[in-house]
Amino acid sequence: MLVVGIDPGTARTGYGFVAENAQGDLEAVAYGVIETPAGMEPEKRLQILYRELNQLLLLHRPQSAGVEKLFFDRNVTTALAVGQARGVALLALVENQVAVSEYTPVAVKQAVVGYGGADKNQVQQMVTALLGLEKIPKPDDAADALAVAICHLHSSRFARMAE
Amino acid sequence: MLVVGIDPGTARTGYGFVAENAQGDLEAVAYGVIETPAGMEPEKRLQILYRELNQLLLLHRPQSAGVEKLFFDRNVTTALAVGQARGVALLALVENQVAVSEYTPVAVKQAVVGYGGADKNQVQQMVTALLGLEKIPKPDDAADALAVAICHLHSSRFARMAE
Repeated sequence: MLVVGIDPGTARTGYGFVAENAQGDLEAVAYGVIETPAGMEPEKRLQILYRELNQLLLLHRPQSAGVEKLFFDRNVTTALAVGQARGVALLALVENQVAVSEYTPVAVKQAVVGYGGADKNQVQQMVTALLGLEKIPKPDDAADALAVAICHLHSSRFARMAE
Repeated sequence: MLVVGIDPGTARTGYGFVAENAQGDLEAVAYGVIETPAGMEPEKRLQILYRELNQLLLLHRPQSAGVEKLFFDRNVTTALAVGQARGVALLALVENQVAVSEYTPVAVKQAVVGYGGADKNQVQQMVTALLGLEKIPKPDDAADALAVAICHLHSSRFARMAE
């Protein structure tokens, strides 16, 4: 089973494609960030995000997706801007027939580390270990996206067991 | 010249296509709202919005667009959700080669009524008069979108005069 994790943002959106084999071993198939230039008009930045994510989905053809559910203690202007990027990412998924599940940051930490209060470094260490990588995936948004993918695989496994 | 005004929202997105002839007379070519069912998954609602807006843009082929710039005194969750709809609307515009300009609510009121502190009813009355309509366009989101289109036409006219 191949899934994708997405961590949407305005300047950069992290993605991580993770495959799970029959033995339950995880493999990072592809990960990285889609970046858009800060000085560009918002709608052009959204277009780049949409097209690049679309290409990745066409290339890897994941069965389903986990998307980070965002909460803002910060300001509403940031929430609006991140919402725009998130809307475009969700659209790319649904247009590629990729089923979407959303996970809170606490759910992701719980699934990856086993503790919802884990810090960023603990999450990154566990992502590295679970995927058998030699070092922590960079940048942070890519590591975050891989964590969401792992969370989504765990959650899907439980859903299959419960069927 | 034909332009479109867009007032993005989660449950409903207002649109208004307004044409201006050589004499400066305005005509409402088409207006209304794109509504999505409240119980549906967010990504499916965004897909409906994207596809319906896309069809409207293909049908009417506006030269450019005015989009309401949103500010929230309310909560960040609303801002995130509206941002998602707004992102998808902006994407539909840019994918159809429609240039986007953004206008604050105050700028829209200023352009339509001549006074940035005008209330909703004053804006609707002026929209009705300027477009030569028999009654106030309904629902409110459609009237708001027509107001943004009028604002965008005024702004474009000044831009042409300044060239």
